Amino acid sequence: MQAQPRYLLLTPGPLCTHANVRQAMLNDFGSWDDDFKKVSTSVLDDLLNIAHKGDDYCCIPMQGSGTFAVEAAIHSLIPKTSQFLVLVNGAYGQRMSEIAQRLGIPTHIYAVAEDQAIDEYVLEAALIKYPTTTHVGIIHCETSTGIVNPIETLAPIIKNHGAEFIIDAMCSFGALPINVTELNALAVIASSNKCLEGVPGMGFVITHKATLNQLGDISQSLSLSLFAQWTYFEKTRQWRFTPPTHVVAALRVALDQYYAEGGQVARLRKYQRYSKKIRQGMKTLGFEPYLSDDVQGPMIQTFCAYPHETYSFSALYVVMKQYGIILYPGKLTAADTFRVGNMGDLTQEDITHILHSFENSLVELGWSNTAAFNHAPA
Amino acid sequence: MQAQPRYLLLTPGPLCTHANVRQAMLNDFGSWDDDFKKVSTSVLDDLLNIAHKGDDYCCIPMQGSGTFAVEAAIHSLIPKTSQFLVLVNGAYGQRMSEIAQRLGIPTHIYAVAEDQAIDEYVLEAALIKYPTTTHVGIIHCETSTGIVNPIETLAPIIKNHGAEFIIDAMCSFGALPINVTELNALAVIASSNKCLEGVPGMGFVITHKATLNQLGDISQSLSLSLFAQWTYFEKTRQWRFTPPTHVVAALRVALDQYYAEGGQVARLRKYQRYSKKIRQGMKTLGFEPYLSDDVQGPMIQTFCAYPHETYSFSALYVVMKQYGIILYPGKLTAADTFRVGNMGDLTQEDITHILHSFENSLVELGWSNTAAFNHAPA
Repeated sequence: MQAQPRYLLLTPGPLCTHANVRQAMLNDFGSWDDDFKKVSTSVLDDLLNIAHKGDDYCCIPMQGSGTFAVEAAIHSLIPKTSQFLVLVNGAYGQRMSEIAQRLGIPTHIYAVAEDQAIDEYVLEAALIKYPTTTHVGIIHCETSTGIVNPIETLAPIIKNHGAEFIIDAMCSFGALPINVTELNALAVIASSNKCLEGVPGMGFVITHKATLNQLGDISQSLSLSLFAQWTYFEKTRQWRFTPPTHVVAALRVALDQYYAEGGQVARLRKYQRYSKKIRQGMKTLGFEPYLSDDVQGPMIQTFCAYPHETYSFSALYVVMKQYGIILYPGKLTAADTFRVGNMGDLTQEDITHILHSFENSLVELGWSNTAAFNHAPA
Repeated sequence: MQAQPRYLLLTPGPLCTHANVRQAMLNDFGSWDDDFKKVSTSVLDDLLNIAHKGDDYCCIPMQGSGTFAVEAAIHSLIPKTSQFLVLVNGAYGQRMSEIAQRLGIPTHIYAVAEDQAIDEYVLEAALIKYPTTTHVGIIHCETSTGIVNPIETLAPIIKNHGAEFIIDAMCSFGALPINVTELNALAVIASSNKCLEGVPGMGFVITHKATLNQLGDISQSLSLSLFAQWTYFEKTRQWRFTPPTHVVAALRVALDQYYAEGGQVARLRKYQRYSKKIRQGMKTLGFEPYLSDDVQGPMIQTFCAYPHETYSFSALYVVMKQYGIILYPGKLTAADTFRVGNMGDLTQEDITHILHSFENSLVELGWSNTAAFNHAPA
């Protein structure tokens, strides 16, 4: 395979990783060997620390994509006698409810519009409608739009209701602050390849040890059993089944860089800076953001179709790719949109290049005939 | 992370990969992009061709370790009204039956000793004991010992019985000949990181299209649904959930090298050459092979504890690691053994180095005081 040119992946992941992260994959590890055990253990410790755990929580790795980790949490933490309420404002909320329904867990879906955050009023209305709710599932940052649901506001209401809180933090973990203890969360679920800027191939679930111990191994799936994965790892420092050794080694380096750059606060500040610049630039170019500023998160933004009669996303995609930029289609049921992510190993210069490339593409495609920015396009 | 010295991984996987395979992971791919779709599609086509498919079969990728792919096959291809017979002569047969039992599929285990192959007599006895069997599950090469079960002999008996044949070919696919059509197999399951010599992080299931279509989506697991993964891939050339892009790119290069080296015939010949040399050398050193020659496969060998009163595997492991060699513990219920795999990117010189290192280690550990080989140890 030829080395390909470096593309800027403006996607919700997999995204651009740092060269050091990829170079970590040039080593082969024995999955049973002490060297790899140390890598795994230190990665899980760091993930726990990012979530401000007390001693009550553990972090359990799971092979596969983030969805596999979400499914593992549902298989392993929600007994079939539960009443699971999923608050939905996008595709990933839908997916969480589909996982539970397939398993035969009594599941209630309370959906709002895709541009509306799940706030305390939505949650309270849902709990009034489904008062027997025992578990509440919410997506922290909906990858399908980039909207952020305010889990800090929701957590005390869920606790007051006596329910457990399951948080899909796939697109927020590492950038937005998450304190599992303060949130009284039963599970916080994320993956290697979003705000942590590793490569894809593993997810993880941060969960409450006592609850896991009390439930025991209730998973109908062997592969996705958190209890089995956890107890085996505690005993042996090994994953139960072959781990994606290179992916784990890459995450080790990604975490080293994360801390070296200043951890969660710095990661959030970087994404805020980039997303603000993209938002302003795109508005200047005539793109309308799908979400209002008050609910927009700093990881992914959704933009509406460009207001020109011959607009098509695929045409824009092709021209932008010639500038070395990979866009991501929308995932909305109603509106014609596309997404621009700014997670990953991007620089200020990359963001400038991205905006200039949008500007040039609009001219090339005949959708705009004037330069939008003060400076001449490159 | 510092570059670590190159270890020879004599394990059942993850194993030593070629530098070109690892270097393929230096590229980031957008999972939605045409470039990655081409990589995925060509990988699946090649895997199908290795299995000598006719038009009746498809190859479905699955994120995670090989066990995830085995579980996906059981979730997706065995209705709960079935009678599943698993023929067990090792840990992976046990695991297959545990997956099915957890799911609530009526499962019968017919176990023989771990050093005994599952031949036509075993199969016929099992089918007499469980005559209502609808699906038969067998491990082609039991990774826990390296024993090979003769699937070609078993296939016609299973067909005559009117049952479906599920083959876990994790440790054989790509090296031992497998013809899905001749075997009339419902599923052949394997992964990226054994005889294909890629890195770990994905498995795949080669299965019968008409049966899959007839069954529809019967999986209780969303992540592990073969039907959903297949129909989505057919429509979009994308995996349903984030694929391990770097792992897939590495498998593409591993398959290129596989073909360049002469495909299945050459891969088998290489493993036969290496395993024979290891077997002879280890015997000369005083290690007793656990399996008899007639059932021993050429991928992994199991050796009994060295006959010295102070023998311990962990002591041997530590000394061998100083020679740059990673061994693998045994996985047997009864006997004290360890395993030596010879899959992966190993050379003739590596095999010689391995045997010399065993020889030196025995002397260093005080278990032997004479050089066993004619030549002086390095």
